[in-house]
Amino acid sequence: MAATLKDFLEACESLGLLRIIVTSSAAVLEVRGNITKLFYAELPKGKYANMHQEDYEFHLNMDKITQVKFEVGEAKRGNFPTYAIRFLDEQSESALSLFLQWGKPGEYAPGQVEAWQALREQYGEVWQPAPVEAI
Amino acid sequence: MAATLKDFLEACESLGLLRIIVTSSAAVLEVRGNITKLFYAELPKGKYANMHQEDYEFHLNMDKITQVKFEVGEAKRGNFPTYAIRFLDEQSESALSLFLQWGKPGEYAPGQVEAWQALREQYGEVWQPAPVEAI
Repeated sequence: MAATLKDFLEACESLGLLRIIVTSSAAVLEVRGNITKLFYAELPKGKYANMHQEDYEFHLNMDKITQVKFEVGEAKRGNFPTYAIRFLDEQSESALSLFLQWGKPGEYAPGQVEAWQALREQYGEVWQPAPVEAI
Repeated sequence: MAATLKDFLEACESLGLLRIIVTSSAAVLEVRGNITKLFYAELPKGKYANMHQEDYEFHLNMDKITQVKFEVGEAKRGNFPTYAIRFLDEQSESALSLFLQWGKPGEYAPGQVEAWQALREQYGEVWQPAPVEAI
């Protein structure tokens, strides 16, 4: 059975502290947090994964994500690798990004990079989620 | 002299605690925070207003905002008014929204609604920012 975004998002809890990034045509909002305690709702616009934390809220229309991509990059300042997961929409634009969040620059928590690599191994560097049927 | 977004964003500090919302094609991220300690940068993509807080980061390409709109609405749950400011892009889509954030539902901090009304009075219910010249 092909993996759904619902399965994958739940597996993202293993990544520990993340930088969750959403970008509109003009604005960028970035929050430090874990993906945890997701709940789901079917709305006219699509099937949503949701998260309510004390200081932030997150919603993802899972029906709009066509591709998920693992990316290793380089930090803008300093010579550290970055580990990202991009959730791409029908236009192949990044509708959501999750970056592993370090404590001090370049210092990831123990097991965090390994968890990211394990997910990449399991799902593949680029993969297409199967439609979420029931939530 | 016409008002710029830079002036306006700095004036938004008077609004107190806000819900800052950025929406992409598939995801929504909402953060509770104040607009404060903005700093500016001119990048190839445009002139940015930026904010770094402990748990979140915010960036706005001011050159992409063509209109600002004050909106009174109604809370999804409960019979409370909501007070929003929408920052619209060239497609008249909301690239950024700021909502007054209550403590308990419908209970705004003293002076918060008045500050929102004062800004609406000063800038107008819908207004077009003048270009930011130098930052």
